[in-house]
Amino acid sequence: MAIKRRKVSVIGGGFTGATTALMTAQKELADVVLVDVPDMEGPTKGKALDMLESTPVQGVDVNVVGTKNYEDTKDSDIVIITAGIPRKPGMSRDDLVNTNVKIMKQVTDQVVRYSPNCMILVLTNPADTMTYTVYKQSGFEKNRVIGQSGVLDTARFRTFVAQELGVSVEDVNGFVLGGHGDDMVPLIRYSYAGGIPLEKLIDKERLDEIIERTRKGGGEIVNLLGNGSAYYAPAASLVEMTEAILKDKKRILPSIAYLEGEYGFNDLYLGVPTILGGNGIEKVLELDLTLEEKADLEKSADSVREVMGLIKS
Amino acid sequence: MAIKRRKVSVIGGGFTGATTALMTAQKELADVVLVDVPDMEGPTKGKALDMLESTPVQGVDVNVVGTKNYEDTKDSDIVIITAGIPRKPGMSRDDLVNTNVKIMKQVTDQVVRYSPNCMILVLTNPADTMTYTVYKQSGFEKNRVIGQSGVLDTARFRTFVAQELGVSVEDVNGFVLGGHGDDMVPLIRYSYAGGIPLEKLIDKERLDEIIERTRKGGGEIVNLLGNGSAYYAPAASLVEMTEAILKDKKRILPSIAYLEGEYGFNDLYLGVPTILGGNGIEKVLELDLTLEEKADLEKSADSVREVMGLIKS
Amino acid sequence: MAIKRRKVSVIGGGFTGATTALMTAQKELADVVLVDVPDMEGPTKGKALDMLESTPVQGVDVNVVGTKNYEDTKDSDIVIITAGIPRKPGMSRDDLVNTNVKIMKQVTDQVVRYSPNCMILVLTNPADTMTYTVYKQSGFEKNRVIGQSGVLDTARFRTFVAQELGVSVEDVNGFVLGGHGDDMVPLIRYSYAGGIPLEKLIDKERLDEIIERTRKGGGEIVNLLGNGSAYYAPAASLVEMTEAILKDKKRILPSIAYLEGEYGFNDLYLGVPTILGGNGIEKVLELDLTLEEKADLEKSADSVREVMGLIKS
Amino acid sequence: MAIKRRKVSVIGGGFTGATTALMTAQKELADVVLVDVPDMEGPTKGKALDMLESTPVQGVDVNVVGTKNYEDTKDSDIVIITAGIPRKPGMSRDDLVNTNVKIMKQVTDQVVRYSPNCMILVLTNPADTMTYTVYKQSGFEKNRVIGQSGVLDTARFRTFVAQELGVSVEDVNGFVLGGHGDDMVPLIRYSYAGGIPLEKLIDKERLDEIIERTRKGGGEIVNLLGNGSAYYAPAASLVEMTEAILKDKKRILPSIAYLEGEYGFNDLYLGVPTILGGNGIEKVLELDLTLEEKADLEKSADSVREVMGLIKS
Repeated sequence: MAIKRRKVSVIGGGFTGATTALMTAQKELADVVLVDVPDMEGPTKGKALDMLESTPVQGVDVNVVGTKNYEDTKDSDIVIITAGIPRKPGMSRDDLVNTNVKIMKQVTDQVVRYSPNCMILVLTNPADTMTYTVYKQSGFEKNRVIGQSGVLDTARFRTFVAQELGVSVEDVNGFVLGGHGDDMVPLIRYSYAGGIPLEKLIDKERLDEIIERTRKGGGEIVNLLGNGSAYYAPAASLVEMTEAILKDKKRILPSIAYLEGEYGFNDLYLGVPTILGGNGIEKVLELDLTLEEKADLEKSADSVREVMGLIKS
Repeated sequence: MAIKRRKVSVIGGGFTGATTALMTAQKELADVVLVDVPDMEGPTKGKALDMLESTPVQGVDVNVVGTKNYEDTKDSDIVIITAGIPRKPGMSRDDLVNTNVKIMKQVTDQVVRYSPNCMILVLTNPADTMTYTVYKQSGFEKNRVIGQSGVLDTARFRTFVAQELGVSVEDVNGFVLGGHGDDMVPLIRYSYAGGIPLEKLIDKERLDEIIERTRKGGGEIVNLLGNGSAYYAPAASLVEMTEAILKDKKRILPSIAYLEGEYGFNDLYLGVPTILGGNGIEKVLELDLTLEEKADLEKSADSVREVMGLIKS
Repeated sequence: MAIKRRKVSVIGGGFTGATTALMTAQKELADVVLVDVPDMEGPTKGKALDMLESTPVQGVDVNVVGTKNYEDTKDSDIVIITAGIPRKPGMSRDDLVNTNVKIMKQVTDQVVRYSPNCMILVLTNPADTMTYTVYKQSGFEKNRVIGQSGVLDTARFRTFVAQELGVSVEDVNGFVLGGHGDDMVPLIRYSYAGGIPLEKLIDKERLDEIIERTRKGGGEIVNLLGNGSAYYAPAASLVEMTEAILKDKKRILPSIAYLEGEYGFNDLYLGVPTILGGNGIEKVLELDLTLEEKADLEKSADSVREVMGLIKS
Repeated sequence: MAIKRRKVSVIGGGFTGATTALMTAQKELADVVLVDVPDMEGPTKGKALDMLESTPVQGVDVNVVGTKNYEDTKDSDIVIITAGIPRKPGMSRDDLVNTNVKIMKQVTDQVVRYSPNCMILVLTNPADTMTYTVYKQSGFEKNRVIGQSGVLDTARFRTFVAQELGVSVEDVNGFVLGGHGDDMVPLIRYSYAGGIPLEKLIDKERLDEIIERTRKGGGEIVNLLGNGSAYYAPAASLVEMTEAILKDKKRILPSIAYLEGEYGFNDLYLGVPTILGGNGIEKVLELDLTLEEKADLEKSADSVREVMGLIKS
């Protein structure tokens, strides 16, 4: 009968995980549990405590806990997986993928054990393949296992367009399908400023530059940072999806969703427009694509399948 | 005639500076300029761009710029100084203080050059001495140069009390005078939960433990992190002060203020209750202290004077 | 397994009820159902639809429904009762009380029927007696039936003090016990600005004037409006209590609570400090009172008992 | 050098004016002055005081003043005009228009006298003609005199579409040109859900019904209320425009703007897409229209000109 606060667990206490925990707390969406491996117990606890100590000033009542124990994630409403290794110099893509697949499986087992009814959001790269892995390992219904890539890609795109036009980011929309970054399939005809198609506002050459910058958006940050990759915008993207689910908002957001025939794909996780609400992915929105868009999406899917191949072998 | 967005510059692009920039942007308080030394230009730009790319998702219209050039801070309303080195193993306190004093002077010259009408908030440790340095170097009126320590100390205290009592952080107040951490002079008789003096709610022994934990609050995080110090709660504290000034809220908050006779001190920056509004420190609130409190405050001031001595010699 | 949006029903679609619905929607706390009698069906639907049409601009996803049917309140988490008649010229207090008691009983039967697990907040005047009536009629546990008066009284007090001192309303606390308005028992020794007891900041005469103005605060608005009574601050007060419960915030707020021995009273609803969380009134906080405060509270209780007498006879 | 809080004055203390004042205060955008005629001084003061008394609970520091004196509006950043009479039974349109024109002129003289540098937002109906009147009377540059109608029309449209599709209002866009209500020219090809053109999501017949309901949206509320007209969504619309200006957001919003050649019109205020920022209407966005759209817009302009004729004669 009592009303319980929602609970969100974030697996992986690195910059993205910690920032995701912070932004969830700042919106007073839920109690937050930040989990990392035993070796990182100190820093994980330290970050969580520091966040908690900011709550009086931010005026929010949520608990923030750092831990190495999955018991602490018990009965989470949403679990966000950011764990995984980044690609290190000299590491082959196979090694990267297979290491992260192993991590996904271990994490998923723990998540499922303690929160059998949760939704799972996956950020770990390559996100399509990792979301697939979590889906299979969890045994959850497809609507409850969701990957992130398109919210971030469109956030970057919207930023660049808003700057180009000198207008509010609130009034710029972008639309992407397919994979993350290089594999992104932007639908420019569905991208607008103030409802006006971008093609009428920005000339093609400049628009192509913006798309190209978006594709390389992750790399641009990596190059600037010198060490590590983006975390503010990725975290904000995860929290937008989290909020859509926790508040049952029925947001239309691009998700990495499990496809069973949609867009002609089967048994594949791929970026598509979805309705996100209290049931996770409540619907995949199917659009008519042009031949060119279809070809691009097929290429994007091939790229996913290729990575998938690494783990199946 | 046109209405201009406010502008806040943050000097020092480390964790605290970057998080301060983020939280300022999230509240849509002002455009934000994050400044660091030329060596750090890439990471500073990278963090700022990553933040900017989060604005469409967070629904805020502010520009966030990372730079090594103080020109970009031109006409800031508020400049927040987080720059400075932390104490490294084997470094004497003298070296730490004198290095940071040198940094303060360099930074202040640049700040004053480009924003002669701004307010300056100082976080760099030891904050009393650094705020004094900035005050002298800037030639600004005393109300425009303000140090932070008490908001953070009370935030930690409030967190621990709220946990102890199982109540909302919004309903717990703390009250501190004097220096940061070990030098903090808590006024427990002015600390409450829901308006009820804490002494009536928590027994003395437990309260002493909470005070002690607050004193060591910075160290607790340092120990947990293993590498580096707290940044979420410090940043949130700076942003609360920033918001009080930008919105002319007339908040009653503890600030490190320049004293000219208040509490019996002269030509000293020390933590005292102040009214923060559109004019910076609009008033220092003077309280009657008990003999014991007076003695503690005197000791705290001695500690500040001792550090001040290091820089005067 | 799906996450459901919270649901709040507001009984009584007059200014206070409608504004309560609006503020609940603005905070995206819950779907809102506004209920009024069949005669008012049109205006109730009109207000709700108008509110709903503001949601795109306010950026919140909640449904707002106006209705005459209690079926629509089914499975509410919280039901807020604002229904009731105001005192009309020539109407005796007996008539007022007995009419509103009748309304409370009818409303409560419907509320309980459709939301047997909800919390009930009561605003209808005289709130102590009306809350008691709802409690008895509902058969609910005492923690789930809560009256509002002290949040509003302290909001007025805080406003006047903040104006007097020229400081932020965020930093002024007030503390009241007992009944509403004239029967209010202010605990000035537990009232502060920035943690500093008001008695040290405002002289006694001026403070007495502020208390007196607070006591007459409802009447001041009634006199100004000429027709009708306050609704903005009452609605905001109800929504603060609603938020405390829905987010399980454990706020320390004055509530009209059922007493079983606390403060020496039994089988009486009276204003006391409480902890409000996911279980409604989770605790009544008991304070040592001075003899004078005890006497005032006894007088306040007498006043409640006198009104209670009208309904028991 | 001191940072001053922004100031917004709302002329007309009826439901819309009062709700506009409330929503401005809730967002802590500015101090608010609510002005009405001497006869309404009491209620105007009462509403403002009631709002002010809600600020401690809402956690915002703004002053809210009710007054009959335009002196109190001195140095406003934005003045919002909601004053004017509604059409009463038996009143001819000529009488309505001419009475409101007279009111606009009187109000404008006072506004200009005390806030010669402000922006003016006009809501009073018929808004195109009233905005024109204020523009001429004020002698202000065209960018500083702005009418509202399209934000409200699109808010209603978005609400109905979101309900139809069961999706978040945040993800539905609408686009209108021309006059308010019946004279509205919806550009369905520029209206989307999640970036997907509505024509692909809703069949034509249903979409036509939604457009028709939007056209009659004001009337629907009038009919339901029985007495009076909508105020929640109109107020929220005004506040969205106010926020765009005060925060220099460069929002792309439909405004009633003064045209000098745009869309082929001259010396006419008409609803068009604009960029709203710190300079008011910073730009009118011109779109290619289809022949049908052009014809509709011409008809809409004729309708405005016809009303304009009433006042010119």
